[in-house]
Amino acid sequence: MEHTLGAEPTHSVWDRTMEPRLRIAPGDVVHMECVDASGGQVGPGSTVEGFLGIDRTRIHALTGPVWVDGAEPGDVLQVDVLKVAHKGWAWSSVISGLGFLDARFTEPYLFQWKLDRNASLSMAPAVVPLRPFCGVMGVAPAEPGAHRTRPPGYFGGNMDVRELSEGATLYLPVSNAGALFSAGDAHAAQGDGEVCINGMECPADVSLRFSLHKQRTLRGPMIEAAARVGEDGAAWIVVESGEDAFKTAQTATSRLIDLLVAEWGFSDVHAYILLSVAMRLRLSQVVNRPMTTVSAGIAKSILPGRRLFSR
Amino acid sequence: MEHTLGAEPTHSVWDRTMEPRLRIAPGDVVHMECVDASGGQVGPGSTVEGFLGIDRTRIHALTGPVWVDGAEPGDVLQVDVLKVAHKGWAWSSVISGLGFLDARFTEPYLFQWKLDRNASLSMAPAVVPLRPFCGVMGVAPAEPGAHRTRPPGYFGGNMDVRELSEGATLYLPVSNAGALFSAGDAHAAQGDGEVCINGMECPADVSLRFSLHKQRTLRGPMIEAAARVGEDGAAWIVVESGEDAFKTAQTATSRLIDLLVAEWGFSDVHAYILLSVAMRLRLSQVVNRPMTTVSAGIAKSILPGRRLFSR
Repeated sequence: MEHTLGAEPTHSVWDRTMEPRLRIAPGDVVHMECVDASGGQVGPGSTVEGFLGIDRTRIHALTGPVWVDGAEPGDVLQVDVLKVAHKGWAWSSVISGLGFLDARFTEPYLFQWKLDRNASLSMAPAVVPLRPFCGVMGVAPAEPGAHRTRPPGYFGGNMDVRELSEGATLYLPVSNAGALFSAGDAHAAQGDGEVCINGMECPADVSLRFSLHKQRTLRGPMIEAAARVGEDGAAWIVVESGEDAFKTAQTATSRLIDLLVAEWGFSDVHAYILLSVAMRLRLSQVVNRPMTTVSAGIAKSILPGRRLFSR
Repeated sequence: MEHTLGAEPTHSVWDRTMEPRLRIAPGDVVHMECVDASGGQVGPGSTVEGFLGIDRTRIHALTGPVWVDGAEPGDVLQVDVLKVAHKGWAWSSVISGLGFLDARFTEPYLFQWKLDRNASLSMAPAVVPLRPFCGVMGVAPAEPGAHRTRPPGYFGGNMDVRELSEGATLYLPVSNAGALFSAGDAHAAQGDGEVCINGMECPADVSLRFSLHKQRTLRGPMIEAAARVGEDGAAWIVVESGEDAFKTAQTATSRLIDLLVAEWGFSDVHAYILLSVAMRLRLSQVVNRPMTTVSAGIAKSILPGRRLFSR
């Protein structure tokens, strides 16, 4: 079954007690409207002065929550990204005190992108390819209370992993009845790191299909990434967020070893060596303080013919 | 002009006073023989017991140094990687106390790879693509004395950047007359991170072309990477090594901004935003203690038609 969900009212915290805006069954598709991360406070005509006056507590202005019938703590929620379509414009900013190079870039700045279908020429001579995705996709965390959406975690959230574009599948551990999924913070494009604090922030029409895997072990987000022309091949990717980049990369690597052992039957040490000769290890975001998000992946061409959670 | 340089005698320290084994002119090609990183102490028939007894001070058993006529401190040495050919076999090990997950993997282990032309099937069901490159490519550092080859630095060295495969170009800042270039530690394949402490360690035949750019600003290694089938497109990549992964990634990002400003004429803030929407940020190696090596890159398809140091 297919559903449509408008953006408003958006929400800007994670809270397990939040009332679902839509109830669906496993297998259903939801066509979601997402406003930009500012919640519509920034538009194509905005100036840096206006930008400085926006209400930042409204970020990330998520669409949801979506209740998935039958979802319970210990399940895995599978989210197939069927479509992420931008609407022709986006913005990126520099904000004093934020960003990866906040000591070097101290002046506020607002840049407007005009978006063609597959690229933006707004920063000539650069030709920037567009691969829209949601910077935030997550389920309500287990901990009670209202949590700011900036830090990502085991529940997904503000991961800003650019591989979550059309064709990707996201797997998330469910912590609450109904899963309570929300998405937003769409980026028409984003680099690894999201270094200036923004991708190409844009409103988007997003189509997602939801499925459930009952009572599976999954310690944090995992992605099955699709091939992208001129870029990476398809891959299995473990996503880990933590306060120390090096330790977070260690945990991500260790989780990917566990996956190879559990799903492909490698011995521990063989999985370790295989990753040593074939892993992709990326700093997906370095700005969602205090968390850094690391993606540890392996090309599907190396390990063909397997579906996760298929048993 | 073309030259041939056998592997022996190898060397295992960086030292600016080392006698060159070959003198060439800019534009010349050198066909270098490289033994494996152990200096031939490990072979297809080696056991883990034998492996534990090798003389580890002989690692990385480099070929060189090569003196480049006219090279002086402040110049940039350009190294075009014309060929890196493995010889059908390789090894990978786990060594107690080394590696990214040394707390999890404490038992010594030795794995033998049989290499077909473009892939290894030794760890079935994995099909591991081969993209041979030299883990170590560098020039003698400015500092006097003998320096162990494990930590990489501004002079290149043990960077273990997998993008240095056939078709890549490496740019290094010259610190001494003649540049004094050496290479070795060939890997038939390696993942980002080189997490178990090894790639597919192999002997290799390596062909390199050397050129000079007189008195150019270059603070550390830079790579022009070639496209790889089923993997990344071609890219400009800044390589930075440092003791803190997060800070090293900041420095690499900052250097890539400087490059965009200097070579493509972007403003500082536009370069920052462009990288925020288009950068690749990778942990190339996380095991050459105390240094982590970060690669910050941007696809050449985004910034077409430019040669570095062409003015």
